[in-house]
Amino acid sequence: MSTRGTSPNLALNEVVAHRRAAGERLVHLGFGESRLPAFGPLVDRLVAGAHRNAYGPVAGSPGVRAAAAGYFGRRRMPTEADQVVVAPGSKPLLMALHHVIPGDVLLPRPAWNTYAPQARLAGKKAIGVPIPRECGGVPEPSALRASIAEARARGRDPRMVVLTLPDNPTGTLAPPAIVREICAIAEEEDLLIVSDEIYRDVVHDPATPVLSPAEVAPERTVVTSGLSKSLALGGWRIGVARFPAGPAGARLRAAVVAVASEIWSTLAGPMQEVAEYAFGEPPELLEHLAASARLHGAVAREVHRIVVSAGARCRPPTGAFYVYPDLEPLRETLRAVGVTDAPSLTEHLLDAYGIVVLAGHHLGDEPGALRFKAATSMLYGETTEEQWLALAAEDPVNLPHVRKVLDVVEDGFRKLCSS
Amino acid sequence: MSTRGTSPNLALNEVVAHRRAAGERLVHLGFGESRLPAFGPLVDRLVAGAHRNAYGPVAGSPGVRAAAAGYFGRRRMPTEADQVVVAPGSKPLLMALHHVIPGDVLLPRPAWNTYAPQARLAGKKAIGVPIPRECGGVPEPSALRASIAEARARGRDPRMVVLTLPDNPTGTLAPPAIVREICAIAEEEDLLIVSDEIYRDVVHDPATPVLSPAEVAPERTVVTSGLSKSLALGGWRIGVARFPAGPAGARLRAAVVAVASEIWSTLAGPMQEVAEYAFGEPPELLEHLAASARLHGAVAREVHRIVVSAGARCRPPTGAFYVYPDLEPLRETLRAVGVTDAPSLTEHLLDAYGIVVLAGHHLGDEPGALRFKAATSMLYGETTEEQWLALAAEDPVNLPHVRKVLDVVEDGFRKLCSS
Repeated sequence: MSTRGTSPNLALNEVVAHRRAAGERLVHLGFGESRLPAFGPLVDRLVAGAHRNAYGPVAGSPGVRAAAAGYFGRRRMPTEADQVVVAPGSKPLLMALHHVIPGDVLLPRPAWNTYAPQARLAGKKAIGVPIPRECGGVPEPSALRASIAEARARGRDPRMVVLTLPDNPTGTLAPPAIVREICAIAEEEDLLIVSDEIYRDVVHDPATPVLSPAEVAPERTVVTSGLSKSLALGGWRIGVARFPAGPAGARLRAAVVAVASEIWSTLAGPMQEVAEYAFGEPPELLEHLAASARLHGAVAREVHRIVVSAGARCRPPTGAFYVYPDLEPLRETLRAVGVTDAPSLTEHLLDAYGIVVLAGHHLGDEPGALRFKAATSMLYGETTEEQWLALAAEDPVNLPHVRKVLDVVEDGFRKLCSS
Repeated sequence: MSTRGTSPNLALNEVVAHRRAAGERLVHLGFGESRLPAFGPLVDRLVAGAHRNAYGPVAGSPGVRAAAAGYFGRRRMPTEADQVVVAPGSKPLLMALHHVIPGDVLLPRPAWNTYAPQARLAGKKAIGVPIPRECGGVPEPSALRASIAEARARGRDPRMVVLTLPDNPTGTLAPPAIVREICAIAEEEDLLIVSDEIYRDVVHDPATPVLSPAEVAPERTVVTSGLSKSLALGGWRIGVARFPAGPAGARLRAAVVAVASEIWSTLAGPMQEVAEYAFGEPPELLEHLAASARLHGAVAREVHRIVVSAGARCRPPTGAFYVYPDLEPLRETLRAVGVTDAPSLTEHLLDAYGIVVLAGHHLGDEPGALRFKAATSMLYGETTEEQWLALAAEDPVNLPHVRKVLDVVEDGFRKLCSS
């Protein structure tokens, strides 16, 4: 029997729930959930879709696929409905891609904690490549070239590279120049690009340039996305993939649909109804998305300020709802309290300050590094009223209920780093 | 890239939808969907669960797991909530089991068309074992012993056997004596039993004795089930698995939960709300389940009568909503119209009589055999009004709208077999 553990972020989430149930007061920065209520019209669509109790097409109904095609089209990726597949989350779509694409997988290092285990489930090797200094979500281009050469020399067969744009765990968006470089390498080395763009609508500043590899290398890029992050619908499980146009893209999509038909059949009908509305992006939804992105940005920047003030190195967040601090500058100080690596660092943060973060080694990073992921998206309030307030606020980080939690975080990091 | 095709039943379903959209009148016996409306209180629970947009525990919330434990407990399988995992359908649970259980897989032959492709996706070999004369869903015991010995002699490592109780595709329920024999073999040969009981609440006659291998060999049986069949909720994707009590069962379950966390995260929150209600089995739901099982039985028996009258051999249906006729007695007659095997038989039924069935070779049966699966669960009417009428009828097969379709089937088979 396999001895793999539960995905560490989900496992940590359950640990926190148990410790809180036992009375502990914890600040939970260890789980990438947008803790916001479901937007009203989405609930209306779920209710409207309740009659959809029959099995529908594996890839999704024509209506939801057309809506998703429009969504991608409005992002400079012209798309036909028959390039789209919806699914119960983007996870199963990524898993299906691992099943149907041969060879090994190149991942940024660190990267979201599910890519590598999925690769292993499909019998592949996951090859981690360090990220650039300025951003995550992409391998550093020269390191990517070197890793490919080295992997081939070892007899491995890298055929696919996964990018995360914007990135989980670093909360940054790779700039267009780097995306172009990666695409050029993918062309030269004949790699398929899987571009995980689930945080695409959580770019904090609408002026930030966003370039998808599907614009640069359209014939070799599959884009995955979903509604879990931008619309805070993690619990509804709605994902989507966009395949390249043309015969090779169609074959790849058919192979994924075949795997889908054996693993999950289709996305639940009521959820397809929700997705059709959401991908249609009516004005009220766009407004809600923009407000959410503003909130995520404001709180992520504040947590970034806190950890940098305490002495950490940390890339400034520009998308998603994460920061990825590096406490290397404080290594000597931290050694005094027994903190020498990522596991001891995160354990100490939890036990001494009640702050829950995800250690970097769970994301493929070096266990010896003093790095961790902090999700900043669960600080908006405990009640839906508080969460709506945060969403509407001009200056959410100074709302009393948000400030109170941020103060716990600030206090904890200040004490940790001057301990 | 993989060249696997879409699961043949789902593919056939989409072919039928296209040909119908093009104006063809087809009787669709090729897809195992219970074509009935969603029961009202289930819709109410979906709506009530709409607020559950946050990620919950991978295995399901404590409430839905406790309800499922009660469901199994009322079926002579005492169960704690922590033996349960819910998922978006039973398919992903079966897939996860394939991932975590080592070795190869023994399947009844014929069997549901998803078991073998899943085994292959997990890198296993699927070993088909002929079913007994009287029923499907189980390997014939002596053939099972022989297949295990032969597989081992060839260097294979069978470690798991899948049973379907009641069975898809034969529409029969293996009697307790055979279940006990299979359990004895599983003990001797150290096999894990996966008992797919998704049709358990579609036993036509409540007096039929039902024995789960989980009652006989509890420490080595995993039971899977779901709401797609008994409650006509295929489009809502709700599945469940029950793991053995004790440390080995807990380890197996933990491994499945780990895979779940990487492939699908969790069952959608609103669907957990539905499942909690359904597994609680309040009186109105039990009544609805009983009415559904009566209807499924009445129509399956009528289709059985039709094919047997036409000259087919066919096991009498006792559960689920299928018959699995064998036209071997008519081989000479059929040769005259170019029908010589399962593919030509099903093609001829479609083209000459507009009757859609699933050829036996898609289910692992011999392609040369004149066998096919006919699902009888989509004959209850085109509108929800007709379907509610069928569900309430004393004698549903003689309702005019049901009779009309049955007459097309009867006419087709009579002509085919006297051609």
